[in-house]
Amino acid sequence: MSNALRGHKLGFVGLGNMGRANARHLHEAGAQMLVWNRSAAALHGAAQMGMACAANLPSLARQIGSGVIFINLTTTAVVEEVVFGPGGLHEGLHPDALIVDMGTTAVEATRRFAAKQPWLDAPVSGGQVGAEAASLTIMAGGSHENFQRALPLLQVLGSRVTHMGPSGSGQVTKLANQLIVAQTIDAVAQALNLAQRSGVDPALVREALLGGFAESRILQLHGQRMVEGRFAPGGRSVLQLKDVRLMCELAQDVGLQSPTLANSLAQWEKMVHEKGLGELDHSALIRLYQDN
Amino acid sequence: MSNALRGHKLGFVGLGNMGRANARHLHEAGAQMLVWNRSAAALHGAAQMGMACAANLPSLARQIGSGVIFINLTTTAVVEEVVFGPGGLHEGLHPDALIVDMGTTAVEATRRFAAKQPWLDAPVSGGQVGAEAASLTIMAGGSHENFQRALPLLQVLGSRVTHMGPSGSGQVTKLANQLIVAQTIDAVAQALNLAQRSGVDPALVREALLGGFAESRILQLHGQRMVEGRFAPGGRSVLQLKDVRLMCELAQDVGLQSPTLANSLAQWEKMVHEKGLGELDHSALIRLYQDN
Repeated sequence: MSNALRGHKLGFVGLGNMGRANARHLHEAGAQMLVWNRSAAALHGAAQMGMACAANLPSLARQIGSGVIFINLTTTAVVEEVVFGPGGLHEGLHPDALIVDMGTTAVEATRRFAAKQPWLDAPVSGGQVGAEAASLTIMAGGSHENFQRALPLLQVLGSRVTHMGPSGSGQVTKLANQLIVAQTIDAVAQALNLAQRSGVDPALVREALLGGFAESRILQLHGQRMVEGRFAPGGRSVLQLKDVRLMCELAQDVGLQSPTLANSLAQWEKMVHEKGLGELDHSALIRLYQDN
Repeated sequence: MSNALRGHKLGFVGLGNMGRANARHLHEAGAQMLVWNRSAAALHGAAQMGMACAANLPSLARQIGSGVIFINLTTTAVVEEVVFGPGGLHEGLHPDALIVDMGTTAVEATRRFAAKQPWLDAPVSGGQVGAEAASLTIMAGGSHENFQRALPLLQVLGSRVTHMGPSGSGQVTKLANQLIVAQTIDAVAQALNLAQRSGVDPALVREALLGGFAESRILQLHGQRMVEGRFAPGGRSVLQLKDVRLMCELAQDVGLQSPTLANSLAQWEKMVHEKGLGELDHSALIRLYQDN
């Protein structure tokens, strides 16, 4: 256990796959963690690792005072409820407390939240594998001062932490990331299925293509999942669909007309709602092409 | 100058950007080169480097006898004309001569050609940069015997040479490669434009995303071109469009129904035919989003 964060007292709300790994790294770096989660099971696990559990959100906020509270939640609606809803953090929140939002949250909502409370949007790329290995790519949006406050903490969680600009910039960057991920998964899925239908071994195609212009992290990792048919998440497709919706909303807000983005949304909706594959890893998009 | 190919006498037809670099590497590896090209200027350059120039295609074929003839041409129609058309190679071709086709040629046509003459489809990925550096990814289709005949020659040109299966398998793999390239370029273009419209620096977004799930060779190389607006080819968009058309034909032949592929074709057609950007590098697809 390193002691880089010894003396820091940190709040952490949301102990799902990503949050649990992030909280653990902060704890192991020596921070005194005060955590909260909706379900008791995750709280119990945190307590077993030696973290303190808050009785409720206002109590967590009061104990952290003017410090830093991480939130690692799945949707914009949950972020709003946890921070500003009835029984939420705001009932005990110090006006100087900094909220660090590591989830993928709508850009416009992020700007609205940041007008009410010191806020750093700090969404990540790299998935659960990156979270476990503390090698996340972290894209932060907020004031220079708030970024500097959070930086030593974020450096414990990720290998690349970039300050993208004012509040919302981290979320814009995350949506740009997710746009590329969603569409590259689709491209790799079609390419491997095209090969298979044409009598060429997809596993061999994936290997042959690594090193050329088609090389990508998606071809390496998700391509391998597609070849093996190994679709336990990983990155759940319902969350990928949620992110594609968020980026379509942002594209509309800023006047980007993209038939490709509209098509991408239709593909992910088909996968999740028509095919019922939402709980599988997003690499299972290849099923759309295998089944038709 | 190495002498790995000393004693080999090789034919080479097609001295464009890719062919010129490939012929030069074979020449520098010690092979005795006999070349032909439609335009005299390219032939003149080859002669200055010490290569012999054939008077015409049948003469080249006769001098090579049962050896190996490379062709590095732009379209299926040109391949068919150069090999089997009036005044083509076939008028002097030995029945045991092996044709090594390094271009991107239709799968069905490749299988038809291979029924008439020993044939190895050996298309490449890596572009002119890869050809100049002899670091191409080469995906070969043909019999084991023909692959083994060509392997020591192909190893001079590429850093990864894979035997994909029988004739046409190399072309299938190349189309799978091009599908990924075409769609990843589109994804990176939209992502960077979405960031710019949202007030976040696209150059910073590109850097922040390297290392995460969105990382790709396209984000590195073509993303950098988009950031700089540097669109001199490189890979010409008319050729990218040609490859997208070939993959749509193959998809239809093998029963792959893909709205994403149809959308991709529409985007490249719009870029080349409506916007008139066909002679620019394929990274200039971002103009579709910048102009709307």
